[in-house]
Amino acid sequence: MSKAPLSEDDLIATFFAPLAGPGALGLRDDAACMAAPPGADLVVTVDALVAGVHFFADDPADAIARKALRVNLSDLAAKGAAPLGFLLTLALPAPWPDQLTPPAVWLAAFARALGEDAAAYGCPLLGGDTVKTPGPLTLSVTAFGQVPTGRMVARTAARPGDLIAVTGTIGDAALGLRLRLEPQAPWIAALAPAERAHLVQRYLVPQPRNALAGLLRIEGHAGMDVSDGLVGDLEKMMRVSGVSARVALDRVPLSDAARHAIAVEPALFETAMTGGDDYEILLTAAPAAMARLQAEAETAGVALSVIGEVRDGTDAVAFCRDGAVLAFGRRSYSHF
Amino acid sequence: MSKAPLSEDDLIATFFAPLAGPGALGLRDDAACMAAPPGADLVVTVDALVAGVHFFADDPADAIARKALRVNLSDLAAKGAAPLGFLLTLALPAPWPDQLTPPAVWLAAFARALGEDAAAYGCPLLGGDTVKTPGPLTLSVTAFGQVPTGRMVARTAARPGDLIAVTGTIGDAALGLRLRLEPQAPWIAALAPAERAHLVQRYLVPQPRNALAGLLRIEGHAGMDVSDGLVGDLEKMMRVSGVSARVALDRVPLSDAARHAIAVEPALFETAMTGGDDYEILLTAAPAAMARLQAEAETAGVALSVIGEVRDGTDAVAFCRDGAVLAFGRRSYSHF
Repeated sequence: MSKAPLSEDDLIATFFAPLAGPGALGLRDDAACMAAPPGADLVVTVDALVAGVHFFADDPADAIARKALRVNLSDLAAKGAAPLGFLLTLALPAPWPDQLTPPAVWLAAFARALGEDAAAYGCPLLGGDTVKTPGPLTLSVTAFGQVPTGRMVARTAARPGDLIAVTGTIGDAALGLRLRLEPQAPWIAALAPAERAHLVQRYLVPQPRNALAGLLRIEGHAGMDVSDGLVGDLEKMMRVSGVSARVALDRVPLSDAARHAIAVEPALFETAMTGGDDYEILLTAAPAAMARLQAEAETAGVALSVIGEVRDGTDAVAFCRDGAVLAFGRRSYSHF
Repeated sequence: MSKAPLSEDDLIATFFAPLAGPGALGLRDDAACMAAPPGADLVVTVDALVAGVHFFADDPADAIARKALRVNLSDLAAKGAAPLGFLLTLALPAPWPDQLTPPAVWLAAFARALGEDAAAYGCPLLGGDTVKTPGPLTLSVTAFGQVPTGRMVARTAARPGDLIAVTGTIGDAALGLRLRLEPQAPWIAALAPAERAHLVQRYLVPQPRNALAGLLRIEGHAGMDVSDGLVGDLEKMMRVSGVSARVALDRVPLSDAARHAIAVEPALFETAMTGGDDYEILLTAAPAAMARLQAEAETAGVALSVIGEVRDGTDAVAFCRDGAVLAFGRRSYSHF
């Protein structure tokens, strides 16, 4: 492998051009061009990830690639949108950190995983920008999706009487992060190796629920993905919808690993409920529609658990556990 | 002003929600929603800017905002696209650097300028993401534009016999950067204060040529914006078009300030031709179309200077000056 520095053109031609979708013009232009699908609205979302904040600098390159794309796919899923493609900006550290594999090796692994996910989710690379930074590795992905005109699932559309549900399990990623930050904590020793691996993997690589997007658009009222913590995100959805809710935290779905961790160290329940990085869909639907959603989700192999109901008024959301209303010290991950 | 840390929601509500366009849903959702204009293609472009690489960390907040948006508007202009809106990701340093005004003051100035430019160019804020970083301030803007279906101006479409032209003046920003990096250089003392200010201002705040986009789409063949340096960008355009060119560097338009600097220090000519950050449009058109373009550009108040012609074949582009063919030590700004 050459030791000559990679030019941006080389880097694009070697690693990213093979991932380019039809609108990307081989990544040889300043811009990508997409035919606007007739009768559709475009849904656009962007998320930035910074090494040391959203992932660890020495996380595997393939996990970083998948996380960067998947957190955006999760936003599309929660909006009921089918993926169309994405743009990537990549700020690469200069000098390259010693603890990482050389840039060409790192980029090859990064691009391979990105291409696999792009193919798996039907979301091709359309373009991007690659720059150097004196700071940490920083990525920003803009993802495009489509919904039939006027049918994007809004965060603001929860209605009194709706049931509230969440996909998958909650809290695994937050516990996986704690496990990485405090590897000597007593609760970790109590977990089986497979349980530890489950939590860490859920932090490393989200599982966006794009299989449910079409159904959510048809049967659901409000939707958002849980990224900053279930409690805070749910409160936010109710606030912007102008409604309140009663939530049974006993019914929030937990993995066996999370359940075990909380049994050993009960304070981790709050971490699970408020820590975030779940990338599960939080949604509301009328009761009859929720029954249909649950049946279809089961067919799609995605758990969908009802955890509460939307209520009239603008009272604070009541989070109940064992019959008592809980108050949380922190409600969600705070960025600043 | 409160000393409490700003939550991401506060930050969005205070500084960015006032800038939100119609598809932005008040920035209260995970995604923006845009009606795809019928009969149109969407043109999408993204550029990242890092403090210490693309601007100075202590540049005025308003100049940073304008540059981040305008480098993307420049890409849309060069593609013949009319702006539709943009997404912003902002990675804010934590802790906040001491040499900057406090975050709330900085953000207010940043958002005010961004809003002014968004209004001036008809390119509203559609959404974004705000994160913290242990590194330098990093911005990424994704801009959307539209062209009639199939009419995006490509970088790859230069044809033998076309004339090659460039808007505005070339080299000012590269000289403005040199002036900031080497303030004691002898050539700087020879310039009048207004000349120095002109060069620095051209580095700080690009002047994208969106007024020409519609015309370029109708009359032009190939287009790109000059960001990495005229020589390298022109070579790139010819290479991806499968053609060659002869360029008269004597005819490359220079500002009075650049001309004066080069007269004092002739080596600066190469800086001007290869330094980049110009954000002018480089375009090709058939001779008759070029005459129409020049007449219309004059009406729009934008200089458009013919600097060469496209030739058959794949020989290296001949850059001539005073009748001799020049070779450049560096052809453009190299990212890596």
